[in-house]
Amino acid sequence: MEVVQVLHMNGGVGATSYANNSLLQKKVITMTKPIWEEAITKLYTTSFPAKLVIADLGCSSGPNTLLVASEFIKIVSNICKKLGSQSPEFQVLLNDLPGNDFNTIFRSLPRVQEKLRKQMGCGAGHCFFSGVPGSFYGRLFPGKSVNIFHSSYSLHWLSQVPEGLESNKGNIFMASTSPPCVLKAYYQQFQKDFSLFLKCRSEELVAGGRMVLTLLGRRSDDPSSKECSYIWELMAIALNEMASEGIIEEEKVDSFNIPVYSPSPSEIKCEVMKEGSFEIDRIEVTQVNWDAYNNEFKGGNVSQLQSQDRGYNVAQCIRAVAEPLLISHFGEAIIDEVFSKYGKIVADRMAKEKTEFVNITISLVKSG
Amino acid sequence: MEVVQVLHMNGGVGATSYANNSLLQKKVITMTKPIWEEAITKLYTTSFPAKLVIADLGCSSGPNTLLVASEFIKIVSNICKKLGSQSPEFQVLLNDLPGNDFNTIFRSLPRVQEKLRKQMGCGAGHCFFSGVPGSFYGRLFPGKSVNIFHSSYSLHWLSQVPEGLESNKGNIFMASTSPPCVLKAYYQQFQKDFSLFLKCRSEELVAGGRMVLTLLGRRSDDPSSKECSYIWELMAIALNEMASEGIIEEEKVDSFNIPVYSPSPSEIKCEVMKEGSFEIDRIEVTQVNWDAYNNEFKGGNVSQLQSQDRGYNVAQCIRAVAEPLLISHFGEAIIDEVFSKYGKIVADRMAKEKTEFVNITISLVKSG
Repeated sequence: MEVVQVLHMNGGVGATSYANNSLLQKKVITMTKPIWEEAITKLYTTSFPAKLVIADLGCSSGPNTLLVASEFIKIVSNICKKLGSQSPEFQVLLNDLPGNDFNTIFRSLPRVQEKLRKQMGCGAGHCFFSGVPGSFYGRLFPGKSVNIFHSSYSLHWLSQVPEGLESNKGNIFMASTSPPCVLKAYYQQFQKDFSLFLKCRSEELVAGGRMVLTLLGRRSDDPSSKECSYIWELMAIALNEMASEGIIEEEKVDSFNIPVYSPSPSEIKCEVMKEGSFEIDRIEVTQVNWDAYNNEFKGGNVSQLQSQDRGYNVAQCIRAVAEPLLISHFGEAIIDEVFSKYGKIVADRMAKEKTEFVNITISLVKSG
Repeated sequence: MEVVQVLHMNGGVGATSYANNSLLQKKVITMTKPIWEEAITKLYTTSFPAKLVIADLGCSSGPNTLLVASEFIKIVSNICKKLGSQSPEFQVLLNDLPGNDFNTIFRSLPRVQEKLRKQMGCGAGHCFFSGVPGSFYGRLFPGKSVNIFHSSYSLHWLSQVPEGLESNKGNIFMASTSPPCVLKAYYQQFQKDFSLFLKCRSEELVAGGRMVLTLLGRRSDDPSSKECSYIWELMAIALNEMASEGIIEEEKVDSFNIPVYSPSPSEIKCEVMKEGSFEIDRIEVTQVNWDAYNNEFKGGNVSQLQSQDRGYNVAQCIRAVAEPLLISHFGEAIIDEVFSKYGKIVADRMAKEKTEFVNITISLVKSG
């Protein structure tokens, strides 16, 4: 499976689209606002560029795509208003893999631009938007051309499924039963990918440029820790059930592995230090309930119906991000059943335990 | 009808897609090569920019989308090889209206980039591609950020259907039976649009930057001259036939007008002079047979079958560019029949007359 060709959030605006199932990701963007707000404010007020180039990496398509870039523009416009200074020209570069549904983004842009113009009034600068297809594990932009990068819930995706996972049978991610060589293969892929990411972005940023990155992570030192692996472990249960029912070949499940790595803060820090181009301004750990519609764990105090809803919400959220990978490996015919099973398994666990994603947000400045 | 929202070449790669029916436009790009080759060569060898930004306006989707930009990159890379100098970084900005099928372009990009890398060898610079949705009758790019603009077979599209065409009954374009106020309304819309286009591009170009523009035009001073209006006149015949058969309401045909203007060289020169930012390096008039597959008029020496093929080819070509406009006005149900009728009418005329499009190509340099 070529991750770069296969991976993309579900396009369009239908029932299983990312656009309609990305409330969780929106919540995380909102939660981390103090960090990215501080970054853009510091960036602008220390350099006052005449042209401010903002790039969102892994922009997807839907209501989250332009959320942070629009806020960046408003924050800077407000600073300019307060100072009585001329607003810069804004350029927003929206990046995602070539399979992303850029058409849906582009068709919504005239409305977004109109809204921004109204909100900012006539003193605001021009805003230019473009789409940049490609993997962020490679160069995407000309040298020294970007002022600030933002990325949320993208950078835990690896550039490829790590090699050497043959012994990870029955699992689709790092699990407590995975042999050490599997954990090592995942970690090495993360190191390789993340260091390349830093190197490329460092070449593309102007001096003093900034990056705010939020990704799925973990607090524990153990990469197979439940806090990051549980969501995939339940997917493995669904797939293994279907294998035992003869709907999927067992070999197919054995050879499927999710190209994700959820690093710890110290693993991220380590790569940043090794690469050497960036200083860490802030690093924060947050958590968010699997079901973005119901953020609180209520113990046994939910009805069966509520519990089913929760399972469905989480399954839809994971479907919107992982469906193309599953289709590429298992074919399209089994998809509805996989996510139906998965939703029930998730619902059952959510009724019994507190289920949360751990997010790491890191704010970086390009050194001198 | 909002032209900016409706107008786009037929997307995808199916039978009626622009990608599969744009041989004519490819032919025109090839015919005009000496002009754009000279422009990029002059541009590069007088300024040697470290980053060369190329924008294609009205890039559409299909085999023509990256044709000129790829050639620009190869031409510059070859100059660098000859001089033994470092190749610049290339940035290619692909612009079209938001309804254009950017997804199809973006999914083909990895292959195109790979091919370019192979052709240029290892000494070549980075090539960065992005999509920029929006009307070129407005600002699209930050100030002084582009080195060279190219546009082929796009700029004859107006930003809107001119106002005041109520008296153009039975016609869908300027025709010999159109009252003078119709010709005036079309010309004024062209003047307004083309001068705005020049102003915007002038702001976006670096000093010494260049533009090569090819558009449908005419040699005659008469804007309702057959050389530019005939192709639409035959479409009007098809539509009027369907109105007389009761398939379309007559009122619908009366209120439909194509937002195209095919200027004469002197009309273009006049706008360039008035706007004042550009010097004209070259202006050339060429012509191309309506049927790109059969460039020569063979008089009566074609079989009926060949003649039908020709009509079909031309109808498919016009369908790929005008179908969304027709659907927006008449609905989808009548489309197959319109183009079937149109193909027959065109076939009949092509067997009897020499039928050609007139192209104007202008090569401009931004003054001082």
